[in-house]
Amino acid sequence: MTDSHPTAPGRTFTRSDLVVLGGCAIASAAAGATHYLGAGPVLGFVCSAVAVALLASLVGRSVEQMGDRFGAGATGVLQSALGNLPELFIALFALKAGLVGVVQAALIGSILGNLLLIMGLAFVVGGIRHGSQKLDSKRARATIVLMVLSVVAMVLPSLASYVHTPAAEHENALSMIVSCVLLALFVLTLPASLKRDKDESTTPAMHHEPPRWSLPLAVGLLAAASVLAALVSDWFVAALEPAMATLHISDAFAGLVIVAIAGNAVENVVGIQLAAAGRSEYAFSVVINSPLQIALVLAPVLVIASQLLGFGGLTLVFPPMLVVSVALAVIISAFITFDGESNWIEGAALIAVYAIIATAFWWG
Amino acid sequence: MTDSHPTAPGRTFTRSDLVVLGGCAIASAAAGATHYLGAGPVLGFVCSAVAVALLASLVGRSVEQMGDRFGAGATGVLQSALGNLPELFIALFALKAGLVGVVQAALIGSILGNLLLIMGLAFVVGGIRHGSQKLDSKRARATIVLMVLSVVAMVLPSLASYVHTPAAEHENALSMIVSCVLLALFVLTLPASLKRDKDESTTPAMHHEPPRWSLPLAVGLLAAASVLAALVSDWFVAALEPAMATLHISDAFAGLVIVAIAGNAVENVVGIQLAAAGRSEYAFSVVINSPLQIALVLAPVLVIASQLLGFGGLTLVFPPMLVVSVALAVIISAFITFDGESNWIEGAALIAVYAIIATAFWWG
Amino acid sequence: MTDSHPTAPGRTFTRSDLVVLGGCAIASAAAGATHYLGAGPVLGFVCSAVAVALLASLVGRSVEQMGDRFGAGATGVLQSALGNLPELFIALFALKAGLVGVVQAALIGSILGNLLLIMGLAFVVGGIRHGSQKLDSKRARATIVLMVLSVVAMVLPSLASYVHTPAAEHENALSMIVSCVLLALFVLTLPASLKRDKDESTTPAMHHEPPRWSLPLAVGLLAAASVLAALVSDWFVAALEPAMATLHISDAFAGLVIVAIAGNAVENVVGIQLAAAGRSEYAFSVVINSPLQIALVLAPVLVIASQLLGFGGLTLVFPPMLVVSVALAVIISAFITFDGESNWIEGAALIAVYAIIATAFWWG
Repeated sequence: MTDSHPTAPGRTFTRSDLVVLGGCAIASAAAGATHYLGAGPVLGFVCSAVAVALLASLVGRSVEQMGDRFGAGATGVLQSALGNLPELFIALFALKAGLVGVVQAALIGSILGNLLLIMGLAFVVGGIRHGSQKLDSKRARATIVLMVLSVVAMVLPSLASYVHTPAAEHENALSMIVSCVLLALFVLTLPASLKRDKDESTTPAMHHEPPRWSLPLAVGLLAAASVLAALVSDWFVAALEPAMATLHISDAFAGLVIVAIAGNAVENVVGIQLAAAGRSEYAFSVVINSPLQIALVLAPVLVIASQLLGFGGLTLVFPPMLVVSVALAVIISAFITFDGESNWIEGAALIAVYAIIATAFWWG
Repeated sequence: MTDSHPTAPGRTFTRSDLVVLGGCAIASAAAGATHYLGAGPVLGFVCSAVAVALLASLVGRSVEQMGDRFGAGATGVLQSALGNLPELFIALFALKAGLVGVVQAALIGSILGNLLLIMGLAFVVGGIRHGSQKLDSKRARATIVLMVLSVVAMVLPSLASYVHTPAAEHENALSMIVSCVLLALFVLTLPASLKRDKDESTTPAMHHEPPRWSLPLAVGLLAAASVLAALVSDWFVAALEPAMATLHISDAFAGLVIVAIAGNAVENVVGIQLAAAGRSEYAFSVVINSPLQIALVLAPVLVIASQLLGFGGLTLVFPPMLVVSVALAVIISAFITFDGESNWIEGAALIAVYAIIATAFWWG
Repeated sequence: MTDSHPTAPGRTFTRSDLVVLGGCAIASAAAGATHYLGAGPVLGFVCSAVAVALLASLVGRSVEQMGDRFGAGATGVLQSALGNLPELFIALFALKAGLVGVVQAALIGSILGNLLLIMGLAFVVGGIRHGSQKLDSKRARATIVLMVLSVVAMVLPSLASYVHTPAAEHENALSMIVSCVLLALFVLTLPASLKRDKDESTTPAMHHEPPRWSLPLAVGLLAAASVLAALVSDWFVAALEPAMATLHISDAFAGLVIVAIAGNAVENVVGIQLAAAGRSEYAFSVVINSPLQIALVLAPVLVIASQLLGFGGLTLVFPPMLVVSVALAVIISAFITFDGESNWIEGAALIAVYAIIATAFWWG
């Protein structure tokens, strides 16, 4: 198995692999040190946030290096599932700490961050470098329709709770039913995802390099990164509240903006890099796939886990401003998808809408 | 006039005609018996619901057998108008009995049932049998735009009533004005419908067999079916409340789900059959035409009739959860239409949204 | 410089120029007379409304006659900016008089008037004369996407104020921030507008006649029309309240319908004339460009001016029914744009929705 990558310093690890591995070690150690030695909440928060983002990147690389050994389709599905692992850990520790409002804001904030901020940045970067870009694939439209449907299902308990008194009294039951329906929908989409990724791996644009890591190394690093991510998530959540208090940042803003961006840092960077490389269709697919995963998997898993583990009582009844924001974001991104083209002014307008929503939550 | 249909047992009635005719007779007799002899509310409700659905089918067949004698266009318009006859009877008797909430829920429920449940089933059946299906006709998009406009007009009195205090004090007047505007819009669409159906009848896909029934027979059966439908509707409404009480089903759920599905049974079956036969465009047209009729004709006629006849005081100010549900359903179906393709996963997601809305109304 | 226009009575002024010039003089004089001599509020109001509309037309002509002397792009931008001048004057005088509700209703009313009433009339006129019309340009879709984004940004302070208590306490600050963001977006769109208009002026459909007026004449008439527009706007606002009281018309209706139509009379007439001439794409572009200008420029300028000048306290927190109406109008026009075709029935439905909204505001 030869590695023809020109910048690779050796057979097994490329230079960027080493940066991520080293970064994980240093940031995790720093996060642990600040956590146990008590170095001030803001420094601890920053260290653990960086460590979470780097560990998420390492998880992604490990899965990629398992490569096509289980088939391209299975790898794609595994990658999506494990990509949300750090977000899942953070949310679980936050729920255990009773921070229900932060978790709800972070779920919606991840969707907003992808659909408004990251899509906006991708349009601006892609538009400035490559002019107005076509977004006319059938799959983009099919994904966005599924996302509209999933987000509508996800926010229906909130709407019922606001305006339909009898349902409001059963918000726990309704949230559990909706969560099961969303997970069932996700299971139904799996065969198509498996088939889809197989198709993609044969197209030149999606070509993967042969894996550089042996299977035991990949599995070992994946396991190590996951365990470490769980530990660091705990420290991240522990530092969150005191850091926000020190910085005078409200819970809602912390969840909506800070936790959401830290938890999605890797896929966000990938989406913008793809747009910069002129691969607008692929960038778009990465950017809208993440909110779909949040609505279909992460949110329902957290609701069910919260009930089963007796944590905090997370339901799908979100505060109204979160529902208003996500509804606007979804409608906007649907229109942009059906538009068939993107340009940097649309990107700037998306970022503007994100900035205004974030400002409204500043006064939490 | 020869009948070349191979399965027809004779010149006048095919086997399926005889099934419908016999079914109408048996179900109507059973409904009458349970009504006058008092056989328990649930049995009476089921018998009269089956009888209503079969009579609606007989009305449809009679109009079809009048055939092109009045021109293909006139037949199409007549069919649409008479197709809503059983729903109209049920709603009028329900209004007379003071069940305003049930009628409002049934109006919205018919729209939701078509746009979410039946469209979802049609996508699933069509998608499993024929793979992803194209939905790219200009007419589908024009119909959905008209439906969005009509439903917006229909729910504006509700929105005004919730948020605009001065208009809330005039909800009767505003509902009457909106009803007249909607009926005027319907009259404006008639010439296009007449012309449209003429075009369709010349395409091979829409080819009708020559009528098997003589004109007097068709008119006679139509009259008989209509009179019987009125009678049975009365029994259906009389059995509704006690049956729901026995089954512990709320008024809102009964209207939204049960009455709506019973009243639209025939066109629902037709839509799904067309999808199963791979005629996705035609199936889609049947499925979205019914909500358009409800918003443009049935709802305004009921509001005006309710005022003129002094029944119950039906207005277009619906409970908020009904308005939220119909708004989401309309936006979803508009995005699906503009998507240009349907697949069975989208169908499953539509059914999931319907199920969640129905669940929210279970606690009525 | 020769004038080959067949109906032109001389080199400098065409007959229609003279009608506008004469009309401006007569209507302004009448408005001044009724204002200073006190001829009853309704007559004064009508005179000043007519004078405002004619002066707006004269402003437009003067800019057009400056022609391509500053480049086609600059002229287009200048024309858009100065086209809103009369609306700006009216709004400023109304704010000075404390009529915040009227100004808010007029801002939303201008958007509704363009997206529903004028687009509806354009579809009806164009559809009856030329059958169903194509609306399939990339630019129409890009403009509508930008308009959706701008209007979402513009109404976000309202939504935050209704449902998010902490933000509601900072509605002034949030409105100022959003206004600055909207103006920044407008500045970003300027280079594209300059380039865009240059492209257009080379297409035969957008061909301009060579200017008939010398530059000093054009600038002089522009200056005179602007000063007069400011004077007449003052009289218009002074007559507004007593006229509405005499006619028993509510403030909300006066702003939403009467002020909005008077302030946009010229561009409205142009849009409908273009549709009648079968130039549906261009008509559509004129009709949707105006709401974009209102959201991106007029509303934020008024909010900032209101704060800086200490007038009335205009914020972007609109009454809920205005927000509901504009949200529906924007969604409807987005679907109509993506539909790709327009016909007169869609036009009639648009007018119907406008009439229903206006009716709801009749009880102000």
